[in-house]
Amino acid sequence: MIPVDDPADPRLDVFMGLRDHQLRQARERPGGDMAGSFIGEGDVVIARALAAGHQLESVLVDANRTKGLPELPAHATVLAGGAKVLQAVAGRKELRDPIACFIRPPSNDPVDLLRRAKTVLVTEGVNNPTNMGVILRCAAGLGVDAVLVDASSCDPLYRRAVRVSMGEVFAIPHARIGSLGDLSESGGLAMLAQLGFLRLALTPSTTADDLGDLQLDRDQKCAVVIGAEGPGLSDDVLAACDRRLRIVMHAGVDSINVGTAAAIAFFAVGNARR
Amino acid sequence: MIPVDDPADPRLDVFMGLRDHQLRQARERPGGDMAGSFIGEGDVVIARALAAGHQLESVLVDANRTKGLPELPAHATVLAGGAKVLQAVAGRKELRDPIACFIRPPSNDPVDLLRRAKTVLVTEGVNNPTNMGVILRCAAGLGVDAVLVDASSCDPLYRRAVRVSMGEVFAIPHARIGSLGDLSESGGLAMLAQLGFLRLALTPSTTADDLGDLQLDRDQKCAVVIGAEGPGLSDDVLAACDRRLRIVMHAGVDSINVGTAAAIAFFAVGNARR
Repeated sequence: MIPVDDPADPRLDVFMGLRDHQLRQARERPGGDMAGSFIGEGDVVIARALAAGHQLESVLVDANRTKGLPELPAHATVLAGGAKVLQAVAGRKELRDPIACFIRPPSNDPVDLLRRAKTVLVTEGVNNPTNMGVILRCAAGLGVDAVLVDASSCDPLYRRAVRVSMGEVFAIPHARIGSLGDLSESGGLAMLAQLGFLRLALTPSTTADDLGDLQLDRDQKCAVVIGAEGPGLSDDVLAACDRRLRIVMHAGVDSINVGTAAAIAFFAVGNARR
Repeated sequence: MIPVDDPADPRLDVFMGLRDHQLRQARERPGGDMAGSFIGEGDVVIARALAAGHQLESVLVDANRTKGLPELPAHATVLAGGAKVLQAVAGRKELRDPIACFIRPPSNDPVDLLRRAKTVLVTEGVNNPTNMGVILRCAAGLGVDAVLVDASSCDPLYRRAVRVSMGEVFAIPHARIGSLGDLSESGGLAMLAQLGFLRLALTPSTTADDLGDLQLDRDQKCAVVIGAEGPGLSDDVLAACDRRLRIVMHAGVDSINVGTAAAIAFFAVGNARR
């Protein structure tokens, strides 16, 4: 444990500016000055990141922490922040959850992931990290083998998404693709079709088929394609998918949360293959 | 609009202490000094409460609000709070969402609700208002006709549950029952059986049956019985239900959020009846 009491200590740079979500996401993007790292907070998330093989750079803990830390690699740099440091990082003088900085792993190649997957999740414009985290937590547990996020979706390894997923983002490989609206042969939807995936678009549209009626061959590869809460999938993407499926709503309710809808879709796809 | 600038104004009493969740819930419980009211916040929630026939007592809005209000009954008392009042109520000098106080409707009789329902949700120990809200939002949309909350579950009309449900709690009637662990003839589980409900307990236990295998007669009445995130249903309740069902987990994930699990169960029950 290395005590740090000066907020200007360069070892703290990576933990600064965490609360400016826009700026932080920009800095962690490819080309940004923090593109080589991602942040994981809390004992469970840190333990899961390590278990998944992620390389720890450093951890910031409250110098007054009495609780033990998750088991860390022997070489890990553990910074014990004093009140001034914690105030600068977290906006308060205590830090309940340790904040860890990990080395960002190399990007996956989407085709590589698809060749090994049977059920994949594809997101268009899911740019709310909380929703991304909710979706990823369910995806892993409900049998999704890989995730493709389009250019307009947020980073699955962004701090808030990692936290909300409770570290389950590490249980499932993901890759970035270009705009899902690129319907050319080099676009993501064409790639999915070429590799034998049935592209299932999830939509609240009442003209879509009932998800509950879905029936699939036992070995059918499937891509569940979802858009953001609110706007949903773009018209082009909806039209280009093989099937448009909806969760039938009752009692005049117009929609459910996108994370819940995604979870139901993953469950239904697993069931439809019986 | 009545300007109010003194936090001690008695018309504000009902809006005070909103941030002390424990105390507030105690005060709104039967026998408490606020048992006759419930709070709904935000334009959507207020509009849905009014649409469902709830009686508005008063609304507190930011005196500087420029946006229009949802359509309110002509007699409604609209209090326009100044900075000092808003600070006392909300802990900040602005109020984005109006806060409305409604008259709490008389309790429903559980048997009355069950006689008119085909699919009901029964909760044991769901005492986290956020989880309750998430569950209620899905329940209404996914075909649940009524909700029974046991003595250890939180109030569906508690502010935070109402808010998280986005007001969908008003789309579905609920009633309070005693402890679900009361397995006597007068207990909730016996009542459900007497009225022809198949009691389906949701559990992460790996010895439970796969929810995806559920098949039901088209007219089968069902009660989906769920416990709190973490502890789940008590052993007695699990054993007393007719079926124990689980959502099969993949990738080493141990569980999903209780709201998501409930949503999948509601969907699966609807589907199993085909």
